[in-house]
Amino acid sequence: MNVSVRGKAQHYRTVSFDAAQNAVLLIEQRMLPHRFEIVATRNFRETAVAVHDMIVRGAGAIGATAAYGLAQGAQAFRGTSLAKFSRHVENVYQTLKAARPTAVDPVNAMNQVRAVMSGGQTVAEQQALALAAAEEFANEDVQHCGEIGRHGAKLIRNGANVLTHCNAGWLAFVDVGSATAPMYAAQAEGKKFHVFCDETRPRSQGSTLTAWELAQQRVSHQIIADNAAGHLMQRGKVDLVIVGSDRTLGRTGEVANKIGTYTKAVLAHRHRIPFYVAIPLSTIDWNLKSGFDIPIEERSESEVLGAWGDAPNGKRTYVRVANGSSSAFNPGFDVTPAELITGIITPVGIFKPRELWRRRKELGFEG
Amino acid sequence: MNVSVRGKAQHYRTVSFDAAQNAVLLIEQRMLPHRFEIVATRNFRETAVAVHDMIVRGAGAIGATAAYGLAQGAQAFRGTSLAKFSRHVENVYQTLKAARPTAVDPVNAMNQVRAVMSGGQTVAEQQALALAAAEEFANEDVQHCGEIGRHGAKLIRNGANVLTHCNAGWLAFVDVGSATAPMYAAQAEGKKFHVFCDETRPRSQGSTLTAWELAQQRVSHQIIADNAAGHLMQRGKVDLVIVGSDRTLGRTGEVANKIGTYTKAVLAHRHRIPFYVAIPLSTIDWNLKSGFDIPIEERSESEVLGAWGDAPNGKRTYVRVANGSSSAFNPGFDVTPAELITGIITPVGIFKPRELWRRRKELGFEG
Repeated sequence: MNVSVRGKAQHYRTVSFDAAQNAVLLIEQRMLPHRFEIVATRNFRETAVAVHDMIVRGAGAIGATAAYGLAQGAQAFRGTSLAKFSRHVENVYQTLKAARPTAVDPVNAMNQVRAVMSGGQTVAEQQALALAAAEEFANEDVQHCGEIGRHGAKLIRNGANVLTHCNAGWLAFVDVGSATAPMYAAQAEGKKFHVFCDETRPRSQGSTLTAWELAQQRVSHQIIADNAAGHLMQRGKVDLVIVGSDRTLGRTGEVANKIGTYTKAVLAHRHRIPFYVAIPLSTIDWNLKSGFDIPIEERSESEVLGAWGDAPNGKRTYVRVANGSSSAFNPGFDVTPAELITGIITPVGIFKPRELWRRRKELGFEG
Repeated sequence: MNVSVRGKAQHYRTVSFDAAQNAVLLIEQRMLPHRFEIVATRNFRETAVAVHDMIVRGAGAIGATAAYGLAQGAQAFRGTSLAKFSRHVENVYQTLKAARPTAVDPVNAMNQVRAVMSGGQTVAEQQALALAAAEEFANEDVQHCGEIGRHGAKLIRNGANVLTHCNAGWLAFVDVGSATAPMYAAQAEGKKFHVFCDETRPRSQGSTLTAWELAQQRVSHQIIADNAAGHLMQRGKVDLVIVGSDRTLGRTGEVANKIGTYTKAVLAHRHRIPFYVAIPLSTIDWNLKSGFDIPIEERSESEVLGAWGDAPNGKRTYVRVANGSSSAFNPGFDVTPAELITGIITPVGIFKPRELWRRRKELGFEG
C-alpha cells in the first residue's frame, strides 16, 4: 500500500525481493509508527534473524519472507553438484524454520517453493525456479488479500462505522491485508466510512500499526481504548466489526485471534452488530476438533506492566506503568466460538463459520 | 490502609488533618505507584489547588478534602466579627467548589460542615464546630466503607478469583474504599482469594493504584490487559466481579463508572458470573430518569495515544505510542444497565439495582 515519504505517496510491499542484490527488503515494523524504514537482509541468515526479531511479523508476511529467504539462500550457492546444493538448501530451510518455530506459514511457504524447485534438472534451473516460486507465493498472497477485499467490501455501507482489533493489515501480509482489505476495497469504490481502531493492549498493534496504515491510506479513523468499544456499540456508533485470525478451525468455525477479540464478539452479539473475520485460506486448521485444544501463548509480563513509545526526546522508550512489586498475567490470544461470528470472509467468498467444513473442498482442504 | 515505608507497614488515610499545623495531609496520588509521598497543604487555596490538580481524586477523598479545606479556611480567620467571618467562609467555600466544578461530593461535604457550623454563636465556636464536622465527615466515610466491606465480604468465598476494574479503593476514599472494601474485609476474616486487576486504559488506574493498594495490603493479585477479562471468564477463572461507581441512578439502577465497566458486565452476564457494584450512599442520584441523561465526559486524546510511566532513568515520562497523525476518541465513562448487575453493595446492605427506588427511605433519600 502507499506510504507518504517526504510528503509523496509511494507504493511499498511489506516484503519484496531485490534480485540484483539477492536481498530481501522488509519494512522494519518494530520502528513503526515513529520511523518508516526499509531493511535489506543480504543473506538467508540475516533473513532468519529478521523473522526471529520480528522486524517482520504476521502470517502472510513471514510466509513470504521465508519463501524469499529460501530462494535467497539457494541463489547464493556456488557450484554444480545437485547433492551439495540439496544439503545447502536443507540447511537454509532449517535455519529459516527455526526463526519462528511455532509458526506454520514459513514452513508451508518453503514447502511450496521446494516442490517447484524439484522440477529443475540443474542447480541453475533449481535456483531460477526457487526465485520464481517465491515471487509467485508473494503475488498469490497479494491476490488472495485482494479477493478478500472484493468480497468484504460489500459489507461496508456508505457512511458506516467499522471497528477493528489488532493489526490484520497489509503489514501482516505482503500487501492489502485481511481485515483491512475490505476497507481498502470500499475506499477504492469511493465509499465513505470511519474506522475505530482498538488500541489492542498490551502490544498496542492497533495504535502502532493499524492506525498508521489507515493514516497512510487516508482512511478516516480514530484510535480508542479497548475499554471504549462496548460504550460505542451501546450508543449505536458501530455498524460492523471486522477482525483477522491467527487460526480458524475448519471443523467448528472457532476463531483464535489476538486477546480481546472474544470480548468484541460478545459485545457485538449483544448489540446485534455483524461480526466478521477475514482470513486467507492458509489460516484454516482442518485438524483440531475444539478451540480449547488451541494452545494459548502466555507472553511476557512486561508487556502488561508497561508500554513502549516515543519519549519527548524522540527515543523509543519503555516506561513502567505499574508498581514494581505487582505481577501480571498475559495471555496472547483468545478463542471466539462460531455462534458469535456472522461470517468468515475468505478469498473464495463469505461463509458462515459452521459452513467451512461442508465447503472444505472449495476451501482447499485436501484431507 | 497500610503502606510499607522502609520495609515497615504503617497506617495512612488518603486524607487527614493536622490541627496543630492547620494543614490537610494528602497522599500524592499522581506519583503513585512509583513514589509514596504525603503532601501538606498549608491553607485553603493550596487545598483547592491540590483538588484541582488531582493530587487527590475519588468521590469520598475529594469530599473529605473539601470538608477539611473549609475547616482549615475557617480556622485561619482572625477576628470576632461573625459577618466578616461568614463572608470569609463563603469565599473559602466558592474557592474549593471551583476546584472541581462538576463533582458533587465536595459540595455535599461542605454543606454538611456549614450546617453544623451554623450552630455556633461566636467565631471561635463556629471554627471549632467546623473542624469537628470535617473530622466527622471523614470518619463517616471510613465507617461507611467498613460497612460496605462487612456486607460484601460474604460474597467472596475462600479460594475465589475476583475481578475489579479501575480504582474504587482506599485511595478514592478516606480509607478502605468501596470495591476493595469487601476484599480487605474478607482478608481480615482469613479468607484466601486472588484478584485480577484490569489495567484500565487509558489512565491505567488498575495498574497504578489498585494493584499498588493490593500489593501494600499483601492481597494476592495480578494485573491483566483489559482485553484479557473475556478470555479468563471463558476459561472459568473469574468467580465474581466487584466494581465501584461514579453515579448510580436510584430510579433505574443504572450504574455510571469508568469506561470499560459496561464491557465487563456484558461478559460477566454471558458467563453467569455475579457482577456487583459497591457504593457509598452519596453516589446515588435520585433525580435522573435514564442513564442516557448522564453526561459522558470526553477526555484528552493524549491519554489514548500514549502512556505515562517510569522511564529507565527513573523519571516519570509520557511516551507517544501511536503515530503522530492519528487521532483518538476518549469517552471517560460508560453506563451499565440494571439487568446486567447482580447487586449493589451499600453500607446498609446489598440490594438488587431495581430495588433501590422502593428502598429509598432506607437508603437516605429525603425527596
